[in-house]
Amino acid sequence: MDAVDPLKVAIAQLKRFPGIGERSATRLVYWLLRQGPEVSAEIGAALQALPRQMIRCSACGDVSAVDPCSMCADPKREAGILCVVERPQDVKAVEAAGEFRGRYHVLGGSIAPLDGIGPDELNIASLLERLGPEQVTEVIIATDPDVEGDATALYLAKLMNPLSVKVTRLAHGISVGTEIEYADRSSVARAIANRQEI
Amino acid sequence: MDAVDPLKVAIAQLKRFPGIGERSATRLVYWLLRQGPEVSAEIGAALQALPRQMIRCSACGDVSAVDPCSMCADPKREAGILCVVERPQDVKAVEAAGEFRGRYHVLGGSIAPLDGIGPDELNIASLLERLGPEQVTEVIIATDPDVEGDATALYLAKLMNPLSVKVTRLAHGISVGTEIEYADRSSVARAIANRQEI
Repeated sequence: MDAVDPLKVAIAQLKRFPGIGERSATRLVYWLLRQGPEVSAEIGAALQALPRQMIRCSACGDVSAVDPCSMCADPKREAGILCVVERPQDVKAVEAAGEFRGRYHVLGGSIAPLDGIGPDELNIASLLERLGPEQVTEVIIATDPDVEGDATALYLAKLMNPLSVKVTRLAHGISVGTEIEYADRSSVARAIANRQEI
Repeated sequence: MDAVDPLKVAIAQLKRFPGIGERSATRLVYWLLRQGPEVSAEIGAALQALPRQMIRCSACGDVSAVDPCSMCADPKREAGILCVVERPQDVKAVEAAGEFRGRYHVLGGSIAPLDGIGPDELNIASLLERLGPEQVTEVIIATDPDVEGDATALYLAKLMNPLSVKVTRLAHGISVGTEIEYADRSSVARAIANRQEI
């Protein structure tokens, strides 16, 4: 009886989401029961459709409903400049800044030997294959400013520097709006190391 | 194109949940994309099944997969004593305490004239109809300790006191584990008003 109680099944399923525990899942399920039946149906249908409809762009590795993705296929985006990110959601973050008008390349993670992720597990070969055909002149590396992201950036720079491609990396420093007093130590250290003449 | 992007559709759908905003919804959707396709499918299926399979128990008004619900149908639960709660999730909370072995009655809310909810909008008629056939001797009112819950409790007490049914209400006071110093004012006030001889 309990095993097929749809209430418990729904709570157990929602609990699979990261950051949603028993209490939150229960709250969400009872909220659903107070809505019209179409609400659960619509949310459920969208989740079911997600993995069926989302594929990877064969050019950049980003998740997309079409291949190539809308950004790789967009002739208005500047060719010849690539922004390399770790994850699909990083594409969103860079896009939201509105500063970059080139194309992206999604590595699918960062080099993390302790987790068993070496360069071969990342979309690096497909990155190198793009450089020639797309006449890439600059690759902006936007990996995370942590140990793995730094190692990945260095690895990529070593690979691409001999290929007469300009390799740059996002600037790291004190984030805009942060008072120096409250900035974290590593950001201040990076900000000093990367100081610029004014 | 954007209107049918399954990624945006899934984010928009998850945002309908209370307490889940754009950022959380995006995080959950990208998390789903990193899982096997069966994860989205299973969560989606459970949500879709929920309103199709959950009905209201015609006896107590609780949500249930069967009618009457498992608690109303359970011969081991004490007949003759009812616990009246506002919402289905309150049944769970009282059950979790493990102190009550009678049956429940779910009002479906509390009397809130400002929100247009009068006694007729609540499952009060069905409560009164149970008293005779189920030989109810005591009704424990477990509405919330707020203005609406207090009004509902008083209203029910007035209705049932002439029917030779004992009407009681959950005790309110300082919650177990709370130091008096940190207890909220209303709880301390209720604790003093309801003080008991030792």
